[in-house]
Amino acid sequence: MKIKVVESILKANDAVAQDNRKVMDEAGVLAINVMSAPGSGKTSLLEKTIPALGPQHRSAVLVGDLQTTRDAERLDDIAAEVVQINTGKGCHLSATQVSDGLKSLKLENISFLWIENVGNMVCPAAFDLGEHLRVVLLSMPEGDDKIAKYPTLFQPANAILLSKIDLVGVLDYNMERVKNDLSRINTRAPLIEISTVTGEGMDMWLEWLRSQRTSHK
Amino acid sequence: MKIKVVESILKANDAVAQDNRKVMDEAGVLAINVMSAPGSGKTSLLEKTIPALGPQHRSAVLVGDLQTTRDAERLDDIAAEVVQINTGKGCHLSATQVSDGLKSLKLENISFLWIENVGNMVCPAAFDLGEHLRVVLLSMPEGDDKIAKYPTLFQPANAILLSKIDLVGVLDYNMERVKNDLSRINTRAPLIEISTVTGEGMDMWLEWLRSQRTSHK
Repeated sequence: MKIKVVESILKANDAVAQDNRKVMDEAGVLAINVMSAPGSGKTSLLEKTIPALGPQHRSAVLVGDLQTTRDAERLDDIAAEVVQINTGKGCHLSATQVSDGLKSLKLENISFLWIENVGNMVCPAAFDLGEHLRVVLLSMPEGDDKIAKYPTLFQPANAILLSKIDLVGVLDYNMERVKNDLSRINTRAPLIEISTVTGEGMDMWLEWLRSQRTSHK
Repeated sequence: MKIKVVESILKANDAVAQDNRKVMDEAGVLAINVMSAPGSGKTSLLEKTIPALGPQHRSAVLVGDLQTTRDAERLDDIAAEVVQINTGKGCHLSATQVSDGLKSLKLENISFLWIENVGNMVCPAAFDLGEHLRVVLLSMPEGDDKIAKYPTLFQPANAILLSKIDLVGVLDYNMERVKNDLSRINTRAPLIEISTVTGEGMDMWLEWLRSQRTSHK
């Protein structure tokens, strides 16, 4: 019974997601669903990425959070358009919430639509929002065991950013374990080591983004 | 409709939780639900805490994870009893899963039952498992904005452990903001700064645990 309810919620969600994708395709926007655990650096990544993409690539952002508008405030001066979606007790964004958010955004002359999901390694993975790409952050201090533990998040990712790499010297971290776990579930996504503090890895990340933008056109 | 379904799931869960609490009360066990984001150090905390409590306080552990038995393996030699519960795609433990787990545990001569929840800052908060106390870990690298963002997790906590405090020197962290956010939603729970690497704060944490154990008898 419970499973049936969940299936029907997902089915309804996926139909709205298809509509969202059509809206974004018509506007010529590349939509990226950014997912991670809480505090892995999603907002910090966008703070650094959006200006670095340059004026030829304008960004809009939909920010999901249970409460507060703190992340949206951080991005307000950086992105061309920002809309905060408060999910209350909801552990993920849904396609309907994104559809509502899209209605508040002017998508003309926008290259990238960033959808910053709720900080969570479980729920967001099950919900297609209509995005074209999924980017997952794995923060180094979260430990080297997360890929095997959360395969539903990492398996469909188009890129995986190993964030807070500036802490590499002070953490006991087995990088081989991470790469080995990843090789079993996802051989398509690049694993990019990144730090928004030192800027390490930003070039590779921006290059990947631009190539995705080019091949999407 | 969706809300009604959720309410009825929670109501059924709470009834089972009451039964769990009765089982643990009769066995003289103090049950602690340990919650946090993924990779905040729940398993590391138990690895250090259980031996430090001494032979007069034996521990059993129920470990929730989507997949893998890695955490249970880490605790297998340390705790008197360990049971792994795999939740599949479930983002939290339920009272029924804990009830099933309890059936596999011998609770005689056990002082503490640790319930290590799924790494998640949203879903676990809504589900009473029959625990007596809730302990929430907030890992320092997750940032200083999490208490305001996840009030449903931090509001009902009996103790909050600020973990990975050994990283304090390398992070840009506003401790006042954390304390200020916490003072608005929870003035009961002590905020204990802790590191399982350096051992900082372990004394205070163990003292708190022993006092809870004494007052529970």
